[in-house]
Amino acid sequence: MSHPHPELATPPALPKGGVRVVALGGLGEVGRNMTVIEYDGRLLIVDCGVLFPEDHPGVDLILPDFEYIADRLDDVEAIVLTHGHEDHIGAVPYLLRLKPDLPLVGSTLTLALIEAKLKEHRITPYTLGVKEGGREVLGAFDCEFVAVNHSIPDALAVFIRTPGGTLLHTGDFKMDQLPLDGRITDLRAFGRLGEEGVDLFLTDSTNAEVPGFTTPERDIAPAIERVFAKAERRIIVACFSSHVHRVQQVLDAAEANGRKVAMVGRSMVRNMGIAADLGYLHVPDGVLVDVKKLGDLEDNKVVLVCTGSQGEPMAALSRMANRDHRIDVGEGDTVLMASSLIPGNENAVYRVINGLMHLGAKVVHKGNAMVHVSGHASAGELLYCYNIVKPRNVMPVHGEWRHLIANADLAVATGVPRERVVLAEDGVVVDLIDGKAAITGAVPCGYVYVDGSLVGTTDETMLKDRRILRDEGFVTIIVVRDADTGKIAAGPEIQTRGFAEDEAIFDKVVPKIESALEEARAKGINDTYQLQQVIRRAVGGFMGGKLRRRPMIIPIVIDA
Amino acid sequence: MSHPHPELATPPALPKGGVRVVALGGLGEVGRNMTVIEYDGRLLIVDCGVLFPEDHPGVDLILPDFEYIADRLDDVEAIVLTHGHEDHIGAVPYLLRLKPDLPLVGSTLTLALIEAKLKEHRITPYTLGVKEGGREVLGAFDCEFVAVNHSIPDALAVFIRTPGGTLLHTGDFKMDQLPLDGRITDLRAFGRLGEEGVDLFLTDSTNAEVPGFTTPERDIAPAIERVFAKAERRIIVACFSSHVHRVQQVLDAAEANGRKVAMVGRSMVRNMGIAADLGYLHVPDGVLVDVKKLGDLEDNKVVLVCTGSQGEPMAALSRMANRDHRIDVGEGDTVLMASSLIPGNENAVYRVINGLMHLGAKVVHKGNAMVHVSGHASAGELLYCYNIVKPRNVMPVHGEWRHLIANADLAVATGVPRERVVLAEDGVVVDLIDGKAAITGAVPCGYVYVDGSLVGTTDETMLKDRRILRDEGFVTIIVVRDADTGKIAAGPEIQTRGFAEDEAIFDKVVPKIESALEEARAKGINDTYQLQQVIRRAVGGFMGGKLRRRPMIIPIVIDA
Repeated sequence: MSHPHPELATPPALPKGGVRVVALGGLGEVGRNMTVIEYDGRLLIVDCGVLFPEDHPGVDLILPDFEYIADRLDDVEAIVLTHGHEDHIGAVPYLLRLKPDLPLVGSTLTLALIEAKLKEHRITPYTLGVKEGGREVLGAFDCEFVAVNHSIPDALAVFIRTPGGTLLHTGDFKMDQLPLDGRITDLRAFGRLGEEGVDLFLTDSTNAEVPGFTTPERDIAPAIERVFAKAERRIIVACFSSHVHRVQQVLDAAEANGRKVAMVGRSMVRNMGIAADLGYLHVPDGVLVDVKKLGDLEDNKVVLVCTGSQGEPMAALSRMANRDHRIDVGEGDTVLMASSLIPGNENAVYRVINGLMHLGAKVVHKGNAMVHVSGHASAGELLYCYNIVKPRNVMPVHGEWRHLIANADLAVATGVPRERVVLAEDGVVVDLIDGKAAITGAVPCGYVYVDGSLVGTTDETMLKDRRILRDEGFVTIIVVRDADTGKIAAGPEIQTRGFAEDEAIFDKVVPKIESALEEARAKGINDTYQLQQVIRRAVGGFMGGKLRRRPMIIPIVIDA
Repeated sequence: MSHPHPELATPPALPKGGVRVVALGGLGEVGRNMTVIEYDGRLLIVDCGVLFPEDHPGVDLILPDFEYIADRLDDVEAIVLTHGHEDHIGAVPYLLRLKPDLPLVGSTLTLALIEAKLKEHRITPYTLGVKEGGREVLGAFDCEFVAVNHSIPDALAVFIRTPGGTLLHTGDFKMDQLPLDGRITDLRAFGRLGEEGVDLFLTDSTNAEVPGFTTPERDIAPAIERVFAKAERRIIVACFSSHVHRVQQVLDAAEANGRKVAMVGRSMVRNMGIAADLGYLHVPDGVLVDVKKLGDLEDNKVVLVCTGSQGEPMAALSRMANRDHRIDVGEGDTVLMASSLIPGNENAVYRVINGLMHLGAKVVHKGNAMVHVSGHASAGELLYCYNIVKPRNVMPVHGEWRHLIANADLAVATGVPRERVVLAEDGVVVDLIDGKAAITGAVPCGYVYVDGSLVGTTDETMLKDRRILRDEGFVTIIVVRDADTGKIAAGPEIQTRGFAEDEAIFDKVVPKIESALEEARAKGINDTYQLQQVIRRAVGGFMGGKLRRRPMIIPIVIDA
């Protein structure tokens, strides 16, 4: 576990009456949101999500680092989940592996989504359902829940009352004033809580750099309608499998245009099933059809809703673009990518778009039509929030450093004193004492990698090895020594993979290895490890000097 | 060499009087632009650029595939270079390695830039300088050059007259009506040539998906001025090292604000030196200063212009963000990233922005200010072009499939018949016969990778190996056999790198290997290669079945 802030010491014990806030994820990155709040020795956790890897070869997911709380799980009152997105709930199964009876608190949809996920991990959690306006005393933490509007239904902010002070955590949110489900961010509650006094306001920074106001979800309806009006054959919609309102718009358009809709992809089928069962998705009568029954319908009566909007190679849409899916996209089909383009996914997404267009499909996407709006509050909305809440202290959450700074600047612009705005990263300890929040130290907080079925085994050294193998490949040199005489009995045998140079170059290297080993033997060096180092130096010198290559060098000396 | 279009046959011989056009790069991708035009057995090449790798581990550059012309270099009249960007001139050194006396034709700045590049490759080329309005008969090809406006000065379109028909190739261009240097795309010439008759119009597709008109370069002046007005300490500008006009605006702002400018980074110093010497960059008296002299100046009198706007890890700006550069960016400094964000570079660029902000700098970039405009014509400009030229046939060039299709749709919208718009990719043969252009076949056209000092050695198999090594690592199993008895003398010895699982799992694998080898021996299998396959199967089965891992497996049997 690395220490992210060597300049910050381990914090002092939390003074009596103080509240401590430590984010184990989500500060300095977009993802793995997790905040630990402490009062009087008791802990409350807000969210527990995953981060998707960027340049982490072979890594499937990145988790928050639980080390800080691993020995204190008995002190945890509950895990409050603000909404059902992966970057807020995805790491819950891994935390519950450590203590399966940690109670999960959240709204109906949020709990349904985490329960479905936990079922795959064969965990049945303890849950407590809550609603906006509801209040639950979770041990030392008196929690009130506030409706917020986001790109998934049933999202909540949480107001936490402790004897040491109050905290308002927004979770992810935006302030669409005419949302599809009529459920707006409850600014009246924000105002009332501000009136009561918000000592620390933790606010979503994701879109703090974006000027103005996030476009309402319903403003994409015209673009969807245009797709339906013009489509000659099938319509294939790709979006996030949790975006209930986006799918709602597609269902409504399908009904209005006399088309049937089939869901494609495991997570899409599962999540929309949950949303429909719980009443968050309103499926018009007879509009849904099983994907296997599509053969019975004319192409111009069909809509497919599938996953893969980020170019994920195994998702339905990528496989269609590669002609590796039973839906054979072709001339006259229209693909609607109704989603964001997450930074880093551009090449994969454009590859899918080019592939689909190559097959003859029309592709409507964010780049050429108004088919996506963000789920996060832009700068203009955040200003409203600060002015309504009038917090005593602010701690921007959820975002890279550039987002946190932009959010901090907005708070200051509304009159929050600069010294009352705390810019912290993962692992940084923020203590709220006598109404003032300040950084008091840092705790170990590294990256925990999920690699296949292994959690926390893959480390930075492993990733460094994989990057070297990726860029330069490896060279293995095997020498077999006669166990009795100590002389070379076979080899040097050389194997390379991923290594650019012709193997003929080893005609020059082998004599160097042999003479280096001879020299070592003359000096009385017999230890296998030392001889391996001799080989490494001989080969490495040649690679770096002559060839300017830095492959991984694996010398192996075996006695036989 | 792969064949990109298995459905297309080798084309028939070009009929007498026909003109053949084959792009060896730039169609279906953004980069390595190169078009080969043939008439009566003679060839003219337009541009010869490089493509930057995306998911090509260990690859430095991607070149056009010269195989199609490799045996016909004596037929090449000349290489016309439309402008000095890497994706149009970067592969010239590699082509000249095959035949150093191929003449290069281009404008003054273009030739100066390619000559500087060729000097590094120790090649002195034959060159022919041309100017807008000029006309040169290059063997069978009577070429007239037309001024076009782009994000580098002195760009040219080329109109090629042959007895078999005329071609107008735009190169990269846009139609800024008030460019900084007053040199507009010469639509009057486009009109005159259209009047004479353009049989095939090859047009830049890069921005064909973008509606409307590209913003003029001078419209970013206010944002630059705001940076200068507000900056407290140093101003550090990052932009492309060929963007003379962008740097011109920075020099002018520096002069107006009493600051001195230092160039940082090898390519920036070199290119701006060339541009200043040739009169394309106007350096106000006394504004330039050597970077080593910066210590003598107050921080608020300093501007640095450097490379690294795409987050390139070795460029000046990335190194500043990592505190690995003698310019120690800190509180009060302002960084202006006056450049595009090329798709695929987002993560690298945001990493640099976050790093700089972490050090206390303000960062002004495309995402939060109007500090960049594109160098390519948007849809609105392309419509003007089609209406002015009124070409008989159109072949969209420079772009991914989505760009080529968007450009084709624009041509059709202006009245070019759909069957006169040729959508081709690299290697596809387009013949202009009796005034009609059509696809007649395809030629081999693969990717040629530059990997360190090697050109064309690294192939798809190598890249596949590197991707496996990156994601899954490798497992080497070494068995030493007694050459006399055939029995195992040592091993199985196992080595892994980049492989996620604990080595303890091999306690289970080793007995499987031993019994598989025993069994093979009982069957009389003695061949080393066959025994290696036995080991591979034993290990691979365990990895795939039990662990769901697919590492590279390297079995080695050595006789000693």
